[in-house]
Amino acid sequence: MISVEEAQARILAAFKPTGTEVMDLAHLAGRVLAADVKAPSDQPPFPVSAMDGYAVRRSDGETPRKVIGSAPAGHPFKGAVGPGETVRIFTGGVIPKGADAIVIQEEVDIVGGDVQFNASALRPDFIRTAGLDFKAGDVLVPAGKRITPRDMALLAAGDITEAKVRRQPRVAIASIGDELSAPGSPRQPGGIAASTGYGLSAMISMWGGAPCDFGILPDTAQEIATVADADAELVVTLGGVSVGDHDLVQKALGTADFELDFWKVAMRPGKPLIFGRLGTTPILGMPGNPVSALVCAILFLRPAIDALLGIESSASGAPQRFQYGCRPITARLRHDLPANDGRQTYIRARLIHEGGDVWAEPFELQDSSMLSVLAKADALVVRVPNAPPADTGDRTDIIPLDGY
Amino acid sequence: MISVEEAQARILAAFKPTGTEVMDLAHLAGRVLAADVKAPSDQPPFPVSAMDGYAVRRSDGETPRKVIGSAPAGHPFKGAVGPGETVRIFTGGVIPKGADAIVIQEEVDIVGGDVQFNASALRPDFIRTAGLDFKAGDVLVPAGKRITPRDMALLAAGDITEAKVRRQPRVAIASIGDELSAPGSPRQPGGIAASTGYGLSAMISMWGGAPCDFGILPDTAQEIATVADADAELVVTLGGVSVGDHDLVQKALGTADFELDFWKVAMRPGKPLIFGRLGTTPILGMPGNPVSALVCAILFLRPAIDALLGIESSASGAPQRFQYGCRPITARLRHDLPANDGRQTYIRARLIHEGGDVWAEPFELQDSSMLSVLAKADALVVRVPNAPPADTGDRTDIIPLDGY
Repeated sequence: MISVEEAQARILAAFKPTGTEVMDLAHLAGRVLAADVKAPSDQPPFPVSAMDGYAVRRSDGETPRKVIGSAPAGHPFKGAVGPGETVRIFTGGVIPKGADAIVIQEEVDIVGGDVQFNASALRPDFIRTAGLDFKAGDVLVPAGKRITPRDMALLAAGDITEAKVRRQPRVAIASIGDELSAPGSPRQPGGIAASTGYGLSAMISMWGGAPCDFGILPDTAQEIATVADADAELVVTLGGVSVGDHDLVQKALGTADFELDFWKVAMRPGKPLIFGRLGTTPILGMPGNPVSALVCAILFLRPAIDALLGIESSASGAPQRFQYGCRPITARLRHDLPANDGRQTYIRARLIHEGGDVWAEPFELQDSSMLSVLAKADALVVRVPNAPPADTGDRTDIIPLDGY
Repeated sequence: MISVEEAQARILAAFKPTGTEVMDLAHLAGRVLAADVKAPSDQPPFPVSAMDGYAVRRSDGETPRKVIGSAPAGHPFKGAVGPGETVRIFTGGVIPKGADAIVIQEEVDIVGGDVQFNASALRPDFIRTAGLDFKAGDVLVPAGKRITPRDMALLAAGDITEAKVRRQPRVAIASIGDELSAPGSPRQPGGIAASTGYGLSAMISMWGGAPCDFGILPDTAQEIATVADADAELVVTLGGVSVGDHDLVQKALGTADFELDFWKVAMRPGKPLIFGRLGTTPILGMPGNPVSALVCAILFLRPAIDALLGIESSASGAPQRFQYGCRPITARLRHDLPANDGRQTYIRARLIHEGGDVWAEPFELQDSSMLSVLAKADALVVRVPNAPPADTGDRTDIIPLDGY
């Protein structure tokens, strides 16, 4: 058995970023940039007013100003502001030549057509200088970042119309087990519905991959080899990786062109994880228990997809992000917990926000067959190997499950 | 001017959940259930073994057992376990009649074909009882919940093949401003690229709505009324809501069949927010500054979409979730902050995880035109109206921007 950290490091080492494709701006949200996107020009392109008011020369002091024109956004004033003159201006309007301050409209009196105000109303800081937001050549969004909605607005502001992104990694999924049938189809005696693949496909899509579910496969080497032949960057098998005579993935793989990297990780749930390569395709053999498999996906599959997407922190193996498969945060325990054994343990828990603290309340039942508990959980409490007993109120690392 | 909380309450009150549609299991991820989904049957449907080993009768104590058959998952043993007998069993295998405990395979010796073990190896708790995960009639996923990948696995395990969900609310977007042009198209003098709509569309999709971007509209009542005639649950306008002579949305709306609910919210950025109804369509008039508009989207548009989706916490106006537009968490300030004025202020900040604490470090520049700062931010620090000065290390409410 190896540690979770070693397993994560070995998996990360096996993946390189996928190839690239160029996508239109409208389709960039959620994609990962393959190269820095730089601003072609300054934003704003020219000094603009941050307020509605009057563009004036500071050197004129409190002299009443004669209004010589106006500068709404998108309609620059063509002349210049001379001594004793002002231009009516609006938010986003280009600062006319000669002007170096704004007086906001709430601070003026119009007397006989002239604009009057106190010297304290002269505000050079209400001028947004050219390039205040970004300058030509600045990196707007860096390579390896997944593009957020806020980045979308920034790219649009930078007049970007397309960008080079990573191709979505293809992940093939095969469910293995004689007891499985598709949801809603007739079950054989002793049978249950295959479930993990549905959760896994949704996770893979959410993490930026392209899932391809091969459904339920017979436990034979030939069938598994077929999946590995699929044009995928990674094959995930579900089930068939334990020690029983009927856990055939290992046997099946033993007869194929399979190179084992590791088998068994010192963790709970999820111990019987297999990682290796079938021909040229990496294969991640996950436990058949749905909870174990989904926890393994969070810990091992997400980093693999991140590495395939060239997400920066995973390419560098950044320890903070991957120490527990994603950036852990701390919470306070709502229960005492006993000492842990030698396996890193992931306890399903509810989070409670109270008194400025986040509290983690472990569910009583932690059986790895209980999807209903995993679905209700807000977080996994991480217990390191041989952790001493923990008391109510102690701080503990948690992995939030928001959105998973 | 009204408070952020009052504005949120008024907006929430204006929306009822959309109609429903039935979707196949494979397309349920991210959708919001319109009715509880209940389990049609127990899971597991029968008692099963949690481990690989031997199914035995406890009353036989340490008597060596004769192996009379096997029960892999999906292949139940057809007979019964009698005195002195055992059935080889595997994880997920149906517990044969007569057996009431499991002995795991690591604890047995095979002597002359018989299975031997100590009494302490008898484990009734390695039997998963029928209905351990869920029972027929249990609610698997409740109405008003957005379906997560974990819920997907749970629904599949429950043999659910379809469910009734809320129709995705249609949100029309119109950008208003003579200075705007589409990214990449030629700019007029004094012009800039329209940007907010791209960020907003991506947010609306992420929040479960269906955005429809009408692009850049001339500042006329007629054009805005056209958008309101679109078959949308909500129209969002960007720009044209300030006090200047050239901010025409108000004027335009004034001439149409517009009923104002409120105008101006005591907040920064985002003060000149308008909410009302044009004919039968609710209309949210957002500021032209992209940062102001995107902050307003997080605070006001997301709750509106949640209400349209019938997400439980918003239907009940749940105060915790919506106090600041989403559930705030606390962080410690990395800087001193001055006293706040009468407007609720949302300060763009970076988050730093250090020493088990989350620290919020406000960016130096907070100008509402700076998309580059908003794109880099991890959170908004919330400063309530008239908040006293805050010191470095003080706890403060933040709104995390993860995924926005």
